[in-house]
Amino acid sequence: MKREKIDLLVTFNRNYIGPFRTMLRSLLLNNPGESFRVWLLHSAIAQEDLQELEEFCNAQGVPFSALRVDRAVFRDAPISRQYPQEMYYRLLAPQLLPDSVKRVLYLDSDILAINPVRPLWEMDLRGCAFAAASHSGVLDVMNGVNRLRLKTDHDYYNSGVMLMDLDAARKIVRAEDIFDCVREHAAELLLPDQDVFNYLYGKATLPLPDEIWNYDARYYHAYLIRSEGVCQMDWVMQNTVFLHFCGKRKPWSRPYSNRFSALYKHYMQLTARL
Amino acid sequence: MKREKIDLLVTFNRNYIGPFRTMLRSLLLNNPGESFRVWLLHSAIAQEDLQELEEFCNAQGVPFSALRVDRAVFRDAPISRQYPQEMYYRLLAPQLLPDSVKRVLYLDSDILAINPVRPLWEMDLRGCAFAAASHSGVLDVMNGVNRLRLKTDHDYYNSGVMLMDLDAARKIVRAEDIFDCVREHAAELLLPDQDVFNYLYGKATLPLPDEIWNYDARYYHAYLIRSEGVCQMDWVMQNTVFLHFCGKRKPWSRPYSNRFSALYKHYMQLTARL
Repeated sequence: MKREKIDLLVTFNRNYIGPFRTMLRSLLLNNPGESFRVWLLHSAIAQEDLQELEEFCNAQGVPFSALRVDRAVFRDAPISRQYPQEMYYRLLAPQLLPDSVKRVLYLDSDILAINPVRPLWEMDLRGCAFAAASHSGVLDVMNGVNRLRLKTDHDYYNSGVMLMDLDAARKIVRAEDIFDCVREHAAELLLPDQDVFNYLYGKATLPLPDEIWNYDARYYHAYLIRSEGVCQMDWVMQNTVFLHFCGKRKPWSRPYSNRFSALYKHYMQLTARL
Repeated sequence: MKREKIDLLVTFNRNYIGPFRTMLRSLLLNNPGESFRVWLLHSAIAQEDLQELEEFCNAQGVPFSALRVDRAVFRDAPISRQYPQEMYYRLLAPQLLPDSVKRVLYLDSDILAINPVRPLWEMDLRGCAFAAASHSGVLDVMNGVNRLRLKTDHDYYNSGVMLMDLDAARKIVRAEDIFDCVREHAAELLLPDQDVFNYLYGKATLPLPDEIWNYDARYYHAYLIRSEGVCQMDWVMQNTVFLHFCGKRKPWSRPYSNRFSALYKHYMQLTARL
């Protein structure tokens, strides 16, 4: 039986083309037998780069669709250097992607996928429009601060991995709400898109276990402690699907060093070889 | 142009079947476009296990030949619990492998191959029968001790990765010499096969840079210091071919933890998925 194709959404600028390639390479290598399709929402990636990206994806059997977003959509949006229009793309994906796409998995490009994603792809969202993980427990302090800061009563979700039920999301996501939210809360927004997502759609989000679906690669010891010793390296390698290299220091930069850096840099090498 | 097949030699007992599978998986994944053939020299691996090994190899396009070594060969060998006959197999490979095999790459099973091996396979041995790396500089003290202990004037080679020019080796390797050596030096031999190799054939060995061909995964910092900062993790992932998990603590055991453990355990997972 042929399995249903998995639709992926990415939104990045030129600087993240390399990491995206690494992310996709890891995803394909760890999901043999699956077929994927990639949707890129962007505003300013050069035609030449898009061509290369398409060839890179196609060479691995992955259809690639780049959608350049019409600036007219953002006529009423508060846009500034701090809030470029790209920050809205993942939030507006339900409106920007074709109606024929019913479900999409958004992934940041600073991620390695090291195990099969199908269990997430097939997850019953129980009426929720989104599924995402919070890094609570690993970063308990920030979780509390963010709840207070945004006056929400749910965990503060990380927006780096988001499964979207697009039909459900199309009913609740309105560009105007997003623009209003940014206008009203500009002063408090630290991570604009993630904050807005939490503020407006956190209640419509099914919480996912982050140790599986959005493991923050900076905090091996915190996960180990929180899990009372369960999340040893063996466990992580067997169960974690998305290793997320959060934070300012990135694993593709030279001085980056932690217990996942060899793995990341090896995937860079596997990717460079293509 | 079709590339010449690469002949691999392994000799292990039942406990190393799992690690061998991981080693082979890493070798194949990092050497796309190459074809390999595996020779296993063994004495007591069960038919059932051999069958599984053959299927594992064949499923990945690798012919597998298990040669059960005739005990009669070892009629005159000093054999004991400390010196089982298996320790002689890699030394006697020039005699035990078919004459049609002209060159072979011996690999321990506690190795990950993370980059292409062809540069070693095609290396000009300049008349030497063997090529191997020593861990000198990383373990300078032991190197000196071993030179003194074995009264040799060359580096102490690690026998975990050995390229053998079998025709050249067939001219110098004699079972009788090996058995005599063991008899005479039994009291001094710490790592029997490796010591014997160094004692008898060290002079016929071309030294290889260990940071590329036999990187001891325990000593990241020592390599970094010895190379005056060159062998950063990026460098290792781009240049090192064989990561050798030397020592008593093995990366497939649960408590093993260093900066290469995530990489090793990920390869275990990639292997388990086959």
